[in-house]
Amino acid sequence: MKLCSFTKDGTSSYGLVTEAGIVDLGKRFDAPTLRDFLATGDMAAAAGLASEPADFAFDEVAHDPVIPNPDKIICVGLNYHAHIEETGREETPNPVLFARFAGSQIGHDQPLVKPLESDRFDYEGEVAVIIGKEGRRISEADALDHVAGYACYNDGSVRDWQKHTHQFMPGKTFAGTGGFGPWMTTADEIPDPAAMRLQTRLNGETVQDTTLDLLVASIPRLIAYCSTILPLLPGDVIVSGTPGGVGARRNPPLFMKDGDVCEVEVSGVGILRNPVVAES
Amino acid sequence: MKLCSFTKDGTSSYGLVTEAGIVDLGKRFDAPTLRDFLATGDMAAAAGLASEPADFAFDEVAHDPVIPNPDKIICVGLNYHAHIEETGREETPNPVLFARFAGSQIGHDQPLVKPLESDRFDYEGEVAVIIGKEGRRISEADALDHVAGYACYNDGSVRDWQKHTHQFMPGKTFAGTGGFGPWMTTADEIPDPAAMRLQTRLNGETVQDTTLDLLVASIPRLIAYCSTILPLLPGDVIVSGTPGGVGARRNPPLFMKDGDVCEVEVSGVGILRNPVVAES
Repeated sequence: MKLCSFTKDGTSSYGLVTEAGIVDLGKRFDAPTLRDFLATGDMAAAAGLASEPADFAFDEVAHDPVIPNPDKIICVGLNYHAHIEETGREETPNPVLFARFAGSQIGHDQPLVKPLESDRFDYEGEVAVIIGKEGRRISEADALDHVAGYACYNDGSVRDWQKHTHQFMPGKTFAGTGGFGPWMTTADEIPDPAAMRLQTRLNGETVQDTTLDLLVASIPRLIAYCSTILPLLPGDVIVSGTPGGVGARRNPPLFMKDGDVCEVEVSGVGILRNPVVAES
Repeated sequence: MKLCSFTKDGTSSYGLVTEAGIVDLGKRFDAPTLRDFLATGDMAAAAGLASEPADFAFDEVAHDPVIPNPDKIICVGLNYHAHIEETGREETPNPVLFARFAGSQIGHDQPLVKPLESDRFDYEGEVAVIIGKEGRRISEADALDHVAGYACYNDGSVRDWQKHTHQFMPGKTFAGTGGFGPWMTTADEIPDPAAMRLQTRLNGETVQDTTLDLLVASIPRLIAYCSTILPLLPGDVIVSGTPGGVGARRNPPLFMKDGDVCEVEVSGVGILRNPVVAES
């Protein structure tokens, strides 16, 4: 099952994506957002509407970030060996965590915004893990029971601001830099997240390509670690890290510019596509 | 004017703190939370109720974090020379920013929670700046016009988790570690924030004592820098940094333990007091 968030005629809602289009769940359930719907736990009720006629064609809505209003967006840095190596950093025994704020996110087909302040705007294809069930100090063995689903994420990074100091956050949460879509695929369809393949393409050329068995800290390990710190809640997003191939570490560097198109594809999930627009 | 958030008989609200107690604003205005009330900009309507009889004595409610649900909590690290020196780090030309999540916050008189996982639980007295008016790329000259008020903050830090990697966030957002209260004092009462004095006391002994003219990045500079990244919204919180004297850098180290009481006092604002409770 694929679940998305969208806006149509000025009204924000969420829906079930079928071959025919989008079945509007926001008008059928009391939960006002997909985050709230995940908290109800009633995924079966949504699945039961899969044969309903679509309310909208997929392309006639404006796509919002899969979860527009998460309580937490926890990003993971340096979580593939190939990326650690290209940065010249050392592997750490614990996950490298930093935050992104919800207001920095955009949905499928919405523009990734290269800010005025930088010409070093870089892609980072990642797999987003969306929490479905609250928990604190979740064991690795139980971790996948807390996952609602997976989505594509582009953790767009303003590299010079990321390096203003030793803390990454400023370069990781500029407005319009976090692509999150096109939908989440529910966890029942992805029994082994380590088998997922993640690819990033810039203007059609593959620039990142990995499988998730190569994560340094696996998805269960990330859930266990993060939930030790504070409770994970339905709708929380863990952005699990980017593989090797980022633009800043290429020779010559490859940054995103006005008119580019960046895609993040995750096998079993789909393709997140965003045009790049430079602020002027 | 002093504004606070609280819970009474299971109902969350916000109010005006007067000498007589708390005038419940949540029952008088449509805005459901103090964050929403700040967004209305109608501070004069609250001030006009200053002579109303109090609905509650100040001590008969449970105090919530001043803003329980901010869109963003942006913490500033290494923002006083005395603290930079005690850490052995270098001053950076730009502010050191990291995030705290809202679920880690507690109100006045609520326990600061020393987590099971650590014996290195440290205080950090700070001044919190609460945004009242939305803005992007706010100039330093205009910055104070965007401030709704100031509060005391205890950026309780789990030092070993803060040092798991080079990114501070894990040690800065454990559940129950961010004290925020007892209220916010509105900006009209603090025309020059650089003149504020900030003190932290552990069990009555002063352990941090500074004035805010010693900030490396001033409050206007922080607002300008943060708002370049993404819009600041009403209710957003900038926690402006801790002075010298943290427990981890003392010889011998001074960490918080079960039964301790930690106070953060800001001149012109008030005293935030929290008991320390160790999880068991």
